[in-house]
Amino acid sequence: MNIDVGVLGSTGMVGQRFVSLLSDHPWFNIESLAASEKSAGHNYKDAVDWVLDTEIPSKVQGLEVQETKPGLNADIIFSALPSDVANSVEPEFAEAGYFLASNASSYRMETDVPLVIPEVNPDHIELIDIQKRQRDWDGAIVTNPNCSTIILTIPIDAIRKKFDINEIKVSTLQAVSGAGYTGVPSMAIIDNAIPYIGGEEEKMENETKKLLGKIEEGKVKRSNIEFSAQCNRIPTVDGHLENVWIDLEEEIDSTDIKEVLRDYSSVPQDLGLPTAPSNPIKVSNQSDRPQPRLDRDEGEGMTISVGRVRGKKEIKMVTLGHNTVRGAAGASILNAELLAKKGYL
Amino acid sequence: MNIDVGVLGSTGMVGQRFVSLLSDHPWFNIESLAASEKSAGHNYKDAVDWVLDTEIPSKVQGLEVQETKPGLNADIIFSALPSDVANSVEPEFAEAGYFLASNASSYRMETDVPLVIPEVNPDHIELIDIQKRQRDWDGAIVTNPNCSTIILTIPIDAIRKKFDINEIKVSTLQAVSGAGYTGVPSMAIIDNAIPYIGGEEEKMENETKKLLGKIEEGKVKRSNIEFSAQCNRIPTVDGHLENVWIDLEEEIDSTDIKEVLRDYSSVPQDLGLPTAPSNPIKVSNQSDRPQPRLDRDEGEGMTISVGRVRGKKEIKMVTLGHNTVRGAAGASILNAELLAKKGYL
Amino acid sequence: MNIDVGVLGSTGMVGQRFVSLLSDHPWFNIESLAASEKSAGHNYKDAVDWVLDTEIPSKVQGLEVQETKPGLNADIIFSALPSDVANSVEPEFAEAGYFLASNASSYRMETDVPLVIPEVNPDHIELIDIQKRQRDWDGAIVTNPNCSTIILTIPIDAIRKKFDINEIKVSTLQAVSGAGYTGVPSMAIIDNAIPYIGGEEEKMENETKKLLGKIEEGKVKRSNIEFSAQCNRIPTVDGHLENVWIDLEEEIDSTDIKEVLRDYSSVPQDLGLPTAPSNPIKVSNQSDRPQPRLDRDEGEGMTISVGRVRGKKEIKMVTLGHNTVRGAAGASILNAELLAKKGYL
Amino acid sequence: MNIDVGVLGSTGMVGQRFVSLLSDHPWFNIESLAASEKSAGHNYKDAVDWVLDTEIPSKVQGLEVQETKPGLNADIIFSALPSDVANSVEPEFAEAGYFLASNASSYRMETDVPLVIPEVNPDHIELIDIQKRQRDWDGAIVTNPNCSTIILTIPIDAIRKKFDINEIKVSTLQAVSGAGYTGVPSMAIIDNAIPYIGGEEEKMENETKKLLGKIEEGKVKRSNIEFSAQCNRIPTVDGHLENVWIDLEEEIDSTDIKEVLRDYSSVPQDLGLPTAPSNPIKVSNQSDRPQPRLDRDEGEGMTISVGRVRGKKEIKMVTLGHNTVRGAAGASILNAELLAKKGYL
Repeated sequence: MNIDVGVLGSTGMVGQRFVSLLSDHPWFNIESLAASEKSAGHNYKDAVDWVLDTEIPSKVQGLEVQETKPGLNADIIFSALPSDVANSVEPEFAEAGYFLASNASSYRMETDVPLVIPEVNPDHIELIDIQKRQRDWDGAIVTNPNCSTIILTIPIDAIRKKFDINEIKVSTLQAVSGAGYTGVPSMAIIDNAIPYIGGEEEKMENETKKLLGKIEEGKVKRSNIEFSAQCNRIPTVDGHLENVWIDLEEEIDSTDIKEVLRDYSSVPQDLGLPTAPSNPIKVSNQSDRPQPRLDRDEGEGMTISVGRVRGKKEIKMVTLGHNTVRGAAGASILNAELLAKKGYL
Repeated sequence: MNIDVGVLGSTGMVGQRFVSLLSDHPWFNIESLAASEKSAGHNYKDAVDWVLDTEIPSKVQGLEVQETKPGLNADIIFSALPSDVANSVEPEFAEAGYFLASNASSYRMETDVPLVIPEVNPDHIELIDIQKRQRDWDGAIVTNPNCSTIILTIPIDAIRKKFDINEIKVSTLQAVSGAGYTGVPSMAIIDNAIPYIGGEEEKMENETKKLLGKIEEGKVKRSNIEFSAQCNRIPTVDGHLENVWIDLEEEIDSTDIKEVLRDYSSVPQDLGLPTAPSNPIKVSNQSDRPQPRLDRDEGEGMTISVGRVRGKKEIKMVTLGHNTVRGAAGASILNAELLAKKGYL
Repeated sequence: MNIDVGVLGSTGMVGQRFVSLLSDHPWFNIESLAASEKSAGHNYKDAVDWVLDTEIPSKVQGLEVQETKPGLNADIIFSALPSDVANSVEPEFAEAGYFLASNASSYRMETDVPLVIPEVNPDHIELIDIQKRQRDWDGAIVTNPNCSTIILTIPIDAIRKKFDINEIKVSTLQAVSGAGYTGVPSMAIIDNAIPYIGGEEEKMENETKKLLGKIEEGKVKRSNIEFSAQCNRIPTVDGHLENVWIDLEEEIDSTDIKEVLRDYSSVPQDLGLPTAPSNPIKVSNQSDRPQPRLDRDEGEGMTISVGRVRGKKEIKMVTLGHNTVRGAAGASILNAELLAKKGYL
Repeated sequence: MNIDVGVLGSTGMVGQRFVSLLSDHPWFNIESLAASEKSAGHNYKDAVDWVLDTEIPSKVQGLEVQETKPGLNADIIFSALPSDVANSVEPEFAEAGYFLASNASSYRMETDVPLVIPEVNPDHIELIDIQKRQRDWDGAIVTNPNCSTIILTIPIDAIRKKFDINEIKVSTLQAVSGAGYTGVPSMAIIDNAIPYIGGEEEKMENETKKLLGKIEEGKVKRSNIEFSAQCNRIPTVDGHLENVWIDLEEEIDSTDIKEVLRDYSSVPQDLGLPTAPSNPIKVSNQSDRPQPRLDRDEGEGMTISVGRVRGKKEIKMVTLGHNTVRGAAGASILNAELLAKKGYL
């Protein structure tokens, strides 16, 4: 495969992750980088204030940043736009025939827009056909969930495929990168924690129910597992940590839960998608793991680390993932790989 | 009142908090400071590696540190000993006729030892009579709970006094001071979080059930509210933050819950105990409060801050308190004030 | 004395410090709080996003925020404006007859504007007469230096009053509050340090030479001590720490230097200005002090802490102060107190 | 080449860096891992509390940890011992015929022990012959300097090879890993900085003078460049940042200094030593770089990043390196590669 791609919002932090992850991609070539008007016309190297601890990939340094409107040379467009911009811009691109793999929250909950984690609900991409027909678009929008949702839902999916779940509670300890580069002032978070992230709890509750739902008659019938989330910001750079309670229908030994998590493998692994980690879930046996700084880069940032699995009917566990890789840019890229492999492009 | 007091473990971090809080106390005079053998014989000023952001109180600077054994000049002994030391030392003092207000975990769960938060279960101090009789001691041990337990139990007590509670889940974000000065290496926690604190979850679950229990026939009948805790360490210096779920027996409007929390007042307030905050609980209406750095010093560190109270049958809320003041040294001092006022000394 | 005062930029972080420090002031009454257009018309309590770890003083909570233009009811105006705004606004106020005690950098280096630290160069306020005459203003602007300059210059002043100094080098470790509340994103500084603060090194070098200069024929003849600064941002909330090298003309024993620092007292102490600390400089004998978190609040944030004084001809030492108190709001207030006491108002 | 190596102090943090860096080494095979008595006899995997953000290399997981005494199967021994242990242990190994590449400070300043940075003074390894003869050892000890010394000395060497230097002043901002895993308690450093590191300033001053010295008549004649250091600990995990003043004999344009730094290449690069970075020094043109979190991993942690080069006669600049790679384990390994290539083993 050899597919030209573009990135919207390419100078922001998630945009930089896209650029970094795509620069060595075996299928995708970065052909177009778009950003706000003030960046357009400049070389990417000059337009971006690069904040990752890697170098700007040499092949994109000289690429001219373009304006954020249809006309970009690309078959797939990755969107790292803030949701207020994505709101109006993404439909323009879809109408103009582009496929968008979007990390923005704007269209995630639309009934005809697939909200997908390739390991969890790859079949939801069928909604694309309905979307194109209904909206009369040549292209389409495919979305991935919010970072904290993904890190929760992957291990939940492993468990619910074997055992019935009644209810889930989750308390999150989220890294500052989740709010974008300037999102959390250092004055707000050094020697501190903030027990509130605007809209996050609702996103986690709603998105998880859609992700775990089934397609029936062209619509997603949402899961009836009960969800309740409390979200906190803490002074970590990358990596969201979550405390999870899972109320099972029946008593199950935690050893069996661990086995199910460890053995979890799904469609991206079967299809050999390039960004798919060989192990979507790593189970730790150390009592004090996973930890953000030590485990966020597991599987190039695409593996979810789970630990402290305990309990019988009410299972407690801890889950962790890299919020800007598996939880954002890497999620969109894996979605695009699924689309490509399934022949949607 | 004019009562001579001593502090065991006076050079450690909680010991320093005791010294700091007692130095201006209207009832208690610091007469004796004890510490390990290597400190004994030195002036307190020379023996201590002072880590608080206040000065060493001038009146104790020249006090000679004594060995940790009976013979200290004091009517009440405050114990900031680590539990392995407290285990053997505290009974020696009690036997020798001292009253111990102990922050150590060693004897908290003994049936004849009061585990007390003066606002929550002041009547539990009656166990002292049984303790003295049973153990044939002239003195007695009175304990306060673990820091994270206190911060949870005070608002829970306010609620359960009005409404029936079935079950409580709590996820904690705890400050590093909770582990003692050298407890958490900086290498372990900068840009990180640790989803495990040894023994903490068990302490929270057991202690809360004892605190909320009733004395029947000379014993504490534990509360049958279900508890489940997950405990995390984060990079904050002081102040434990907790996400709480409270499953009520009936639907209650969260406005009513807030009112109950705001109006909460109890025995220490009625008795006018000097360390008792006029408001044991402060309810915040700001969506992103309480926060450790901004709210831990509320009420000189003795007030619990609660926020984000929401829900109907399942109430969600956030609670925060200063772990080494209300959660440790301040808790023992308030216990001692209750004993003094009630004539136990 | 009973003087009505106003604060410009009252909702920002330095503005909040002004409000906090002025709310209990024995001479000054907060009569007017001004801020940007979007805040004007609202109660201060509603307009401000309060970030200090104290409460909003009750007496100002209901004060209506006003627009930033002459007409405010006040004899002295404190300015916490950003320099680009101060540039045009401050002269308007001075022309309209107000005295401005400004923390902004805009006019610090103007030849007819006093740049003052009351302990160091109180006589520089004479420039006010020249300023008023030259600019035909009824009011006047008096400025205080940059935060990192003040923390350096106070101990330097103590030394140069006794011994000749050839040259000074300084390397700073500055807190994030120095850049304003949103100035340093947490992404930029967690587990990191930034060896650059725009304009800071030039300010330190230029301002110190003006502060240590003498007034000759109505102008400040700048000091000919050589200065060289390197400035760094580190992950501390408040308190700037500085490593200083002082090249003396002659060999002096460091014990003598310490004595000179310890004995330092000046005009604000003689005049009993209310904000003046009784000891402007505290000398620590502990090898690892001063430290930002432990020492920044010394003397209510108005005392400079100095430690590690060593060397003979080339003296090395460490200095620390609270950058938003002694280094900003407290500095302006002390300037205003000097003006009031000297009868300039 | 195929050389068996051992590591002393292999379970500590620097020991783990040795194991990590050596596990893929093209010349060296880890054959022996030694540690304290309590670890000896266990598999490395069980004995070590692994703290790096990589996995324990699979090939050493099952290696049995041995006691720290001669008898280890190895041609080169890497020593990550604390200096008080190294003091007595390293000579035993050297006497028994082992070559030690030691990161300990114990023997660095001995006249017959080479203190070496392969780019700076590779010829100093000749001291080995004198050492073996004088001490009647079959083996020998070769040392690398202290972490903060290396990060300073490499760029200084580049400059002094072209231009005469009179004097150097340096102020350091050092990461907590420099003190070992438990060296800096989190309570001591969160929201704080410590302007003191025991012995560090003396090490920097003495070691640099030896490193830049010339061998004359079998002894190192120390450099007469004047040095003065002030050392600080800040809340970063890895990466020491240093502010440097270099007083040159003559005025040199900073562009020429940058060129000299950029072009710097030396013996390890000529010899193609496997751990040698192709560019020992990277010069940044961004005004706010280098920064610890963004630049410490440059060149796999072996490249020194320099920025903000400015001035004429007195050059100011900022230098940064990874303190446990280039500043510790990587330094010893590069020394061992030099010995191997030069035929000393």
